[in-house]
Amino acid sequence: MAKGMTFIIAGPSGVGKGSVIKKVFESGRKLYFSVSATTRAPRPGERDGVDYHFISYEQFQSWIAEGAFLEHAEFVGNCYGTPKRYVDEAMDRGEDVILDIEVQGAEQIHRLRPEAVRIFLAPPSWAELRRRLTGRGTESEEKVEKRLQRSREEFQVAREYDYLVVNDNLEQAAAEVLAIIAASHCRAEDRYEAVRRTLEAQ
Amino acid sequence: MAKGMTFIIAGPSGVGKGSVIKKVFESGRKLYFSVSATTRAPRPGERDGVDYHFISYEQFQSWIAEGAFLEHAEFVGNCYGTPKRYVDEAMDRGEDVILDIEVQGAEQIHRLRPEAVRIFLAPPSWAELRRRLTGRGTESEEKVEKRLQRSREEFQVAREYDYLVVNDNLEQAAAEVLAIIAASHCRAEDRYEAVRRTLEAQ
Repeated sequence: MAKGMTFIIAGPSGVGKGSVIKKVFESGRKLYFSVSATTRAPRPGERDGVDYHFISYEQFQSWIAEGAFLEHAEFVGNCYGTPKRYVDEAMDRGEDVILDIEVQGAEQIHRLRPEAVRIFLAPPSWAELRRRLTGRGTESEEKVEKRLQRSREEFQVAREYDYLVVNDNLEQAAAEVLAIIAASHCRAEDRYEAVRRTLEAQ
Repeated sequence: MAKGMTFIIAGPSGVGKGSVIKKVFESGRKLYFSVSATTRAPRPGERDGVDYHFISYEQFQSWIAEGAFLEHAEFVGNCYGTPKRYVDEAMDRGEDVILDIEVQGAEQIHRLRPEAVRIFLAPPSWAELRRRLTGRGTESEEKVEKRLQRSREEFQVAREYDYLVVNDNLEQAAAEVLAIIAASHCRAEDRYEAVRRTLEAQ
C-alpha cells in the first residue's frame, strides 16, 4: 500500500482554512485531519482527542524535549503543537494528512518535512479579510488592524509555497485543494519506482 | 485573463493517449487539442485543419527553417510536426493546450518550453501493452516486439517528467489528468504575482 502524504493548509487568521478543510472532508476522500495538542483547558463541549489532545504543561515540555512535535508555539500563555506520532501513523495507514496551520508553524514543518505539500490559502482581498475578521465581533479594531498587517507580511512567503489557493468561493477553493491532493499522488518522482516495479513484475 | 498552459501527454505507442485525451475532453473543461501538420496525403474522411494540417513537403521544410514547429519528426518518408502558432494562439485566448506526442517529440518541446507540464502515460504492464499492440492486428509480431523494446527504453525518461499516470482504468487516468491540469493552475510560483496585484488593488 502506498504511504499517505502530508498537506499543509496555511494562511492568515480569518481566511477560512477551517471552512475549506471541512468542505474538502465532505468530498468523501479518505483523509486524516491532524488534531493539535494544547495545554489550555478544554472549553465546554470540547472533547479530548477530537478537538485537541489536552495535555499538561509538563507533558508538553517533555514532548518538545523528545522532538515529538512537527511544530509548536505559544499564544497568550498556552502552548499548541502538532504531534508527529498521529501524522506518521495515518501516513503509514496510507491516509493523506491535512494540517490546518498558522504560517509560522508551517515554516517549522517545512524545515522538518520538506516533502510535505504546502498550500497557501489567501483571501480574495484585504478588504474582505477585514470584513471576515470584524464579522467575528470578538476583537477590537486595533487588533483587527494588527492581524491584517501581519497577514500582509505573511502573504510574502506564499511565493515559496507549492500552491496558492484563493478562498473567494468555498466550493472552488475546496475543489482546487482536492485537485492538488490528487495531482500530488501523480508526481513522477514519487511514483516512478512503484510503477517501474509493477511493470517489470508482470 | 490568465494565459493558458501547455500539457504534454507522452507515452509509448499503444498506451492509449488518444483515448485518455478524448475522455479528458468529454469532461467539458475548455481545452485546445493541438492539430499536427503532416506531409502525408489525407486518408478518406480526414479533414484538413481537423485531423491534420495537410501541407506540402516544401511548406514543411520552410516551416522548419522559420522555427515554426515545437517539434517535428519523419516517419516512413512522411513529416509530422506540431506548429507553434496554433498552440500560442490558444494560450493567448486563455485556453489550455493538450499535446498528444511521442516521447522523442516531447523531449524537443521540453527543451523549447520547459514550462510545459509533462505527463507520462504508462501501461499497467508490459504484457497489457503487448496485448493492445497485438490487438490492433496491423503489425507483425517482430514489429510489436520492437515497439515494446522501445517502450521499455522510453519509460526510463518518465522519472524526469512532472507526472506519471498509469492507463489501467480510462476514467481514473482521465480524472488524474484533469486533476493535474487544475492543480497546475494553482502553482504558487505562477499565481503569486496575479494574486498579489488583486489583493493590493482592492
